Amino acid sequence: MAKVAMLGAGFIGDFYTYSIQGLRSRDQVYIINDRNESRARAFAKKHGIPKWTTSMKDAINDPKVELVVVGLPNNLHLDAVKLAAAAGKPVLCTKPLGRNAAEAIKMLEAVEKAGVFHGYLEDLVYPPKTIKAIEAVRAGTLGQVTWVRSRETHPGPHSDWFWTKEISGGGVLLDMGCHCIEIARHYIGKDIRPVEVIGIADTLVKPIDAEDNALGWVRYENGAIGQFEVSWTFRGGMDLRDEVMGTEGTIWINNFLRTGFEMFTAGGKGGYVAEKAESEKGWIFPVGDEVAELGYYNMFTDMFGAYEKKADPVETFYDGYVVNAIMDACYRSASSRKWEPVKLKVWRSREKTGPISEIREYDRDHIFVKEERMPDGRIKVILKNKKTGKISQVEKKR
Amino acid sequence: MAKVAMLGAGFIGDFYTYSIQGLRSRDQVYIINDRNESRARAFAKKHGIPKWTTSMKDAINDPKVELVVVGLPNNLHLDAVKLAAAAGKPVLCTKPLGRNAAEAIKMLEAVEKAGVFHGYLEDLVYPPKTIKAIEAVRAGTLGQVTWVRSRETHPGPHSDWFWTKEISGGGVLLDMGCHCIEIARHYIGKDIRPVEVIGIADTLVKPIDAEDNALGWVRYENGAIGQFEVSWTFRGGMDLRDEVMGTEGTIWINNFLRTGFEMFTAGGKGGYVAEKAESEKGWIFPVGDEVAELGYYNMFTDMFGAYEKKADPVETFYDGYVVNAIMDACYRSASSRKWEPVKLKVWRSREKTGPISEIREYDRDHIFVKEERMPDGRIKVILKNKKTGKISQVEKKR
Amino acid sequence: MAKVAMLGAGFIGDFYTYSIQGLRSRDQVYIINDRNESRARAFAKKHGIPKWTTSMKDAINDPKVELVVVGLPNNLHLDAVKLAAAAGKPVLCTKPLGRNAAEAIKMLEAVEKAGVFHGYLEDLVYPPKTIKAIEAVRAGTLGQVTWVRSRETHPGPHSDWFWTKEISGGGVLLDMGCHCIEIARHYIGKDIRPVEVIGIADTLVKPIDAEDNALGWVRYENGAIGQFEVSWTFRGGMDLRDEVMGTEGTIWINNFLRTGFEMFTAGGKGGYVAEKAESEKGWIFPVGDEVAELGYYNMFTDMFGAYEKKADPVETFYDGYVVNAIMDACYRSASSRKWEPVKLKVWRSREKTGPISEIREYDRDHIFVKEERMPDGRIKVILKNKKTGKISQVEKKR
Amino acid sequence: MAKVAMLGAGFIGDFYTYSIQGLRSRDQVYIINDRNESRARAFAKKHGIPKWTTSMKDAINDPKVELVVVGLPNNLHLDAVKLAAAAGKPVLCTKPLGRNAAEAIKMLEAVEKAGVFHGYLEDLVYPPKTIKAIEAVRAGTLGQVTWVRSRETHPGPHSDWFWTKEISGGGVLLDMGCHCIEIARHYIGKDIRPVEVIGIADTLVKPIDAEDNALGWVRYENGAIGQFEVSWTFRGGMDLRDEVMGTEGTIWINNFLRTGFEMFTAGGKGGYVAEKAESEKGWIFPVGDEVAELGYYNMFTDMFGAYEKKADPVETFYDGYVVNAIMDACYRSASSRKWEPVKLKVWRSREKTGPISEIREYDRDHIFVKEERMPDGRIKVILKNKKTGKISQVEKKR
Repeated sequence: MAKVAMLGAGFIGDFYTYSIQGLRSRDQVYIINDRNESRARAFAKKHGIPKWTTSMKDAINDPKVELVVVGLPNNLHLDAVKLAAAAGKPVLCTKPLGRNAAEAIKMLEAVEKAGVFHGYLEDLVYPPKTIKAIEAVRAGTLGQVTWVRSRETHPGPHSDWFWTKEISGGGVLLDMGCHCIEIARHYIGKDIRPVEVIGIADTLVKPIDAEDNALGWVRYENGAIGQFEVSWTFRGGMDLRDEVMGTEGTIWINNFLRTGFEMFTAGGKGGYVAEKAESEKGWIFPVGDEVAELGYYNMFTDMFGAYEKKADPVETFYDGYVVNAIMDACYRSASSRKWEPVKLKVWRSREKTGPISEIREYDRDHIFVKEERMPDGRIKVILKNKKTGKISQVEKKR
Repeated sequence: MAKVAMLGAGFIGDFYTYSIQGLRSRDQVYIINDRNESRARAFAKKHGIPKWTTSMKDAINDPKVELVVVGLPNNLHLDAVKLAAAAGKPVLCTKPLGRNAAEAIKMLEAVEKAGVFHGYLEDLVYPPKTIKAIEAVRAGTLGQVTWVRSRETHPGPHSDWFWTKEISGGGVLLDMGCHCIEIARHYIGKDIRPVEVIGIADTLVKPIDAEDNALGWVRYENGAIGQFEVSWTFRGGMDLRDEVMGTEGTIWINNFLRTGFEMFTAGGKGGYVAEKAESEKGWIFPVGDEVAELGYYNMFTDMFGAYEKKADPVETFYDGYVVNAIMDACYRSASSRKWEPVKLKVWRSREKTGPISEIREYDRDHIFVKEERMPDGRIKVILKNKKTGKISQVEKKR
Repeated sequence: MAKVAMLGAGFIGDFYTYSIQGLRSRDQVYIINDRNESRARAFAKKHGIPKWTTSMKDAINDPKVELVVVGLPNNLHLDAVKLAAAAGKPVLCTKPLGRNAAEAIKMLEAVEKAGVFHGYLEDLVYPPKTIKAIEAVRAGTLGQVTWVRSRETHPGPHSDWFWTKEISGGGVLLDMGCHCIEIARHYIGKDIRPVEVIGIADTLVKPIDAEDNALGWVRYENGAIGQFEVSWTFRGGMDLRDEVMGTEGTIWINNFLRTGFEMFTAGGKGGYVAEKAESEKGWIFPVGDEVAELGYYNMFTDMFGAYEKKADPVETFYDGYVVNAIMDACYRSASSRKWEPVKLKVWRSREKTGPISEIREYDRDHIFVKEERMPDGRIKVILKNKKTGKISQVEKKR
Repeated sequence: MAKVAMLGAGFIGDFYTYSIQGLRSRDQVYIINDRNESRARAFAKKHGIPKWTTSMKDAINDPKVELVVVGLPNNLHLDAVKLAAAAGKPVLCTKPLGRNAAEAIKMLEAVEKAGVFHGYLEDLVYPPKTIKAIEAVRAGTLGQVTWVRSRETHPGPHSDWFWTKEISGGGVLLDMGCHCIEIARHYIGKDIRPVEVIGIADTLVKPIDAEDNALGWVRYENGAIGQFEVSWTFRGGMDLRDEVMGTEGTIWINNFLRTGFEMFTAGGKGGYVAEKAESEKGWIFPVGDEVAELGYYNMFTDMFGAYEKKADPVETFYDGYVVNAIMDACYRSASSRKWEPVKLKVWRSREKTGPISEIREYDRDHIFVKEERMPDGRIKVILKNKKTGKISQVEKKR
């Protein structure tokens, strides 16, 4: 059983607390910290949390507290992590880890120096569908992954601080690009180095300083592309989809809008339907259990379990740092208007991964290109002559 | 924390144990009972269960055991429940409760007489989507429910005993009709009396004595129809869908085949994809977390929570009895070839529910029938004259 | 090139005329007849039709007219067909053919006696998806068909006459059951005799005399079931789906609500979206080209082509008669509350079709029941002993 | 009625001929030209075409021929168009117009100088769903379009010439990028200037010289982005999807893989299912009528109708030229690794389109940013102070 100090009584703290205390959980949020006293108090009451405080330090240092969860605005992550490290307490931090790689590496150094357990709360690599999909990819079900599209768009965040650049550190790219980038890393391989990025970060619709729409391609050392698409101006709910293309297969995941639950109502008494749902009338697409479907249960099961087993969780601060470095490159690219290298001071995995390769011999003289069944039933095979390089087609005997 | 005796080390015992011990659960299966010693032993090892036994009685009477879960073939439910009642232990029983209403009522009487907590393990009213949908229906989102279709079909059960009528008590109607009937009751209203049934129970494809396909309509006192469709000869995986029609809205739920996860593989290295999936190649539709999506986590959370709070769970043996009584009527109807009354010796809810009614006045002289927008933008309203009963149409000013 | 007299300037005449004159068609509606003069005139103008008349007889007898299309309310079909037969002109009649089998057989006799070409305008066996699906079924892709579900529901018809029983002859069962029944016949086999029916025809919601909801099961001589579901009280648009279950496969068709076109609009400037769409805001699901998707182009291509080639079209008055006879049985059953035989004075196809049969030998001693892959990768086979009838399970070597 | 000379008896000529002569069409392919005599002869026989020839010139100059359709490999388009122009005959050319903008502009000049009718056969702006979607966008249903994703991927083309760069002029970018680029132009506005492009063109999987995967973003003068994704290495069939994001709405179109037709077959007797389908077993997703769904009927209806009315069709050689110019910029960008300007010698539409703008006043002091409904029912509004620029949130009274 883990006794947790939750820092931040906002939207994400709410979600985390539901997850940590949900179902038949053995874990407990023991103290809630928020600088707004009434918010802290109301949160404690709502979730049956024994203690509350407006002091981050008191929360962390409470002797009963085993584990610290950081659910604060981006500009406070570094301070919170430093305090936890100083207290020698394990710490889990929400996404993005830092406002940039410089902040993130300080956080990584702080926890490693202090030798405390650390987890990066990237929930979107933990949805049940995503976990199963990643396992399938690792088992070779898709061959080699050449391209991943990860998309997260909705009509904009729920709290004012997201829209204020000095607090958030950036716009939609920082807020949600971090999800999509890490999802793609999981499918392509976390051990494969991200080498360069081209990105767009535009303010197209909202009257704000930061970008409200961003797109990016991250190129990995083996040639695979991780494509992300994020927006705060999407209309129609929360669009959370992933697509994976491999040499032998394809995966499509829809985490929110089309999950097998469709409801039409003429009466409009639907109430809260789902995060970011935009209508209470007509056809709506609720998600069964958001906390489960967004991966929160699995994430804390991994985090607390790893902590108890003294193992690494799936996502650590190191991962958070890599993601920040990729986003930094993306911001640079959006302004330089060209591909920018991903600058990784720390890279702890494979170097010099060779390119994706699928060359298949057809016969002594030919390399296989493809085969296709025609409407009349014949099967055509396209071949390349090994010596001449000439492409030709032959009909295959069935 | 609940310490559980699990009776039955088969497929359903496996699912139950994963659920009870899954995620960060505080609960534990303490002893596994199976009459096959090696199966019991292997099960204990696989799930980290402290004890195993081939004696049902020893398992139930183990002093550490707080709660008994019956996951046995249908012909053993009554005995197991009697033993638990005799031991004064709370008991949860898998579906169907009995092989018929006569057995079910004995089980209900046994637990009520002994005063022990009892739960009917109808998992399919607990999937997260179903829970949210039922809440929406109760909140009036769909107006009044007039019709529910619940469908469960797959290519047939996994263990020999299901196919042997003296053990199972029946074919697909008994095995899966119980799910669909109870789902419909939840949407239509568990307080509304099921009055009569017409059903089909045919052996169309398989070389067996019991029916491999069944269809039924249950008519409720207010005129609503609960339609069920079950089959052991469906091809393409497990088809688990519900549709609800109300006067103000519609719900469609797909619990298995289309839940936002699609995978194509040319290579066929997919491994186990989902319960009843029929292929390992081509397009397949895995379910993220079957235990979660089928409602097991929520079911045990409700059951154990209710037990701790000394409250009733959502489903008790009384519900299991009502379902058995409806299925009995369905079997009678399949042979008499006409509507058969549902015979309920015990009915503990509303009597004489009036018919669904939605009469809406349009103006002093007319009752509203419907309105529709035409391709050219005009809106037509169909009306009925209160006195003459004549139907007419007028064009509505926009 | 066909010159057509269109009888009826209502909704269906409109759809038919768009189809007949659509795309690069060589055909032409030459004269429009409606008893309402201004409606006839407006219709002629809208579609560029050379002539209009309020006299049905004049329209039919116009010397330039080659072919008569009946798009009138149900109570006028018989008279229109008699006039066309008397004029010796080919005639195509909208669905249902008659208000009952007695009317339908008179129509069949009239055209056969006169020796004129006749077609039954059952558009829903002509949608491109349905045509391809029926071909697949005939090619054996699904094995033997055991069950078909055909569903057509929407919020009610657009013209007052549908709601007036003496004109329409019935409610939703007659109006839309005819579609679903004929769709099922195509999948199960038009040569297989429909033998009996059980049905429900209830007035649940609307203030009308006829039924607004109906359900039915038609049992065919080989044991297959054709299930229909029709409603005038569905909310959420037009729900037009078919499901086919065969011993070797499955087909699911959605003709309207989910066809790969999804639109969300916050602004509600969508205009006419699709037949029976219920909202102009939120998520809506338009159909690309309704005339094409509902089968109208293919239907008239078949009808006019068959006429030119002096062949039979896919659907003749004989088919319309069979459908009416099935619906008659359904109405009888709704009132007798038991299975009723389908009374066919005329049956021109196979007699004594034997039952569906799929018995497969496994080895010398056993019949195959089923096989299934377990989560741990083992494959279980369920077998029946030929002599003892005992069911057992073995593990299959992979 | 149009009498057509079809140049090219390959896959595309086949599709075109089915379309031109399909349903109840008044049009006819009068002569087929292919340099391979037996192919020409077989084609003529299959489609009932009166004449065939191996001479392109003879086909074009046949006095009965009114209209020339070019369905040849890319390297032959320019010559064919020159011959048609020289003969003063209207000419329709398949996509891409040229292998590059230099070729395309010569074709445009040739037809304009000769004063002949010309059409660019971009079928994918004509699918029924796309036509309806474009109309909705023009009617303002989506507000202002900010982003379009158009994706076309499949496992590679069916004829050897596509894979041979000197004939095709390029790889998948040229072959299918042209579709996606023109689709996006239609949604964003054909009158809005495409200004710059960033692209990727990689050879990831196939043993060929040209690219087998390409991605691109086209930035339009108003800031909107047209994103294209094309691949010859997708597995799972033909993936043809469009997504449109507007300030007030969203459109999602799936033209192939999920259109409301799903089939499972264990037996594998499915035969030809759809263009590029990859399996004959398991779950497959046929398209009802490919010719209709891919837009061919509508395309030729527009082309032949415009020709008869002496009007412009939706797509002319000018459009083909603009698309080629965008693709040229994309190839340059793939090699320069930065944004490249779209060089348009000829631009015949709006100049200096201002940026997308949606600023909305909330009250005297504030600009509206967004509103959202929270799980507890409260509605939060995010605002920006006009003077200070500060972002804040207020709770809205319901």
